[in-house]
Amino acid sequence: MISVVVIGSGNVANHLILAFCENKSIDLVQVYSRKTSLFPDCLPVSKITHDLSNLAQADVYIIAVSDNAIAEISSKLPFENRLVVHTSGSMPIDILDKKNHRGVFYPLQTFSKEKKIKFSQVPICIEATNDKDLETLHELASKVVKNTYTISSEQRKSLHVAAVFVCNFVNHLYKIGNDICVEKYVPFEILKPLIEETANKINFLSPSQAQTGPAKRNDTKTIEEHLNSLTNENQKEIYKLLTQSIINHG
Amino acid sequence: MISVVVIGSGNVANHLILAFCENKSIDLVQVYSRKTSLFPDCLPVSKITHDLSNLAQADVYIIAVSDNAIAEISSKLPFENRLVVHTSGSMPIDILDKKNHRGVFYPLQTFSKEKKIKFSQVPICIEATNDKDLETLHELASKVVKNTYTISSEQRKSLHVAAVFVCNFVNHLYKIGNDICVEKYVPFEILKPLIEETANKINFLSPSQAQTGPAKRNDTKTIEEHLNSLTNENQKEIYKLLTQSIINHG
Repeated sequence: MISVVVIGSGNVANHLILAFCENKSIDLVQVYSRKTSLFPDCLPVSKITHDLSNLAQADVYIIAVSDNAIAEISSKLPFENRLVVHTSGSMPIDILDKKNHRGVFYPLQTFSKEKKIKFSQVPICIEATNDKDLETLHELASKVVKNTYTISSEQRKSLHVAAVFVCNFVNHLYKIGNDICVEKYVPFEILKPLIEETANKINFLSPSQAQTGPAKRNDTKTIEEHLNSLTNENQKEIYKLLTQSIINHG
Repeated sequence: MISVVVIGSGNVANHLILAFCENKSIDLVQVYSRKTSLFPDCLPVSKITHDLSNLAQADVYIIAVSDNAIAEISSKLPFENRLVVHTSGSMPIDILDKKNHRGVFYPLQTFSKEKKIKFSQVPICIEATNDKDLETLHELASKVVKNTYTISSEQRKSLHVAAVFVCNFVNHLYKIGNDICVEKYVPFEILKPLIEETANKINFLSPSQAQTGPAKRNDTKTIEEHLNSLTNENQKEIYKLLTQSIINHG
């Protein structure tokens, strides 16, 4: 049985707490939160502390707080030589105070409080400074998810940038699609099977092979007409840049 | 029983032929193709013609050819007063020669020959110049798909632009994500659950509500670091423009 303390009360902390609560081979010893917060109701109130000096003994301490608070909270921990990890995609392992064993436990997913996810499908990227710690993190991760990857800080940083492209930027294009539909009284619903198939397709073809549409065909007439029909300057600029990028880089 | 002739041999034509072949309440009378082409093997060779003057009688003629060939082929049809439709997202209904009843039968999906799709999930957008023709197209569409929408030429044009954003441009962002991973020897596989969840999420939240990430949080430090880590100028430019668009327009 691996024992864990979760430090934090945001989206990632809550999804981890839920996954750990539901798992009988993990002992979720305690959760620290700076102030009173909402937690999944599987977490007994007796396990919540607001006092860092009160932290219980555990095999792994998971700091799941905003990027700019990781360094400070890790330096305030009132113990040494234990395994302390953060959950950030963009912060290097050495942001953590070196008085403890350092590691990373990064679940790569888009977490919103309002939306349940199948946590077992989330890939967890781990990193540690020695084989024993890596093994502990691998054991913990593989109890709650199907796929665990050992990834260096540098690789994780690039992965995080790639995630911004395929998630945040993609979602923003969904928003623009939605805005265009709303403007013309067309139900956005019509686009949902297309959105789903576009995401599904790359499980079978590479993104380059999967590409279709006017930019791929270099169909300048349709591109011109699309640009003329867009009245929003920001949408026009995005249309131009991405079309040019498809034409030049496939 | 509705009888249909399909004119064309591209991706859309082939997906329609397959859907019609498999449906017992549709009589796929004939397929016209300019030159010898590959067709699904459910189509008997006897039903293929390369001669427009040889076209059989049918309730609906579906012109599924590239946008710039629609006008010409519709004017070359050797008959009048029959229902002739095209399948294009971006062409207006009146691109068709007016000697026949005109209509549109636009399946909104990304079609690649290498990738099978569930045709029944594809929305079909229809348009016609009178109620009787509209009813015929609605009857035909609802035999092969679950959702049919009556959409004007102007709405369809905007829908096509929106489709470029949520499909072609989204797929291009997948390609960039893939390129970044390849460069750092990170398996692109890690990003696939994120891609799937991003597409799935908007079935439950609006794209604005679903947004996460550094631009949404206006986390300028992470944005700066991401830009520094990108070495490709084109990727940098896209990162900047889309980040700014999320910050300014949500």
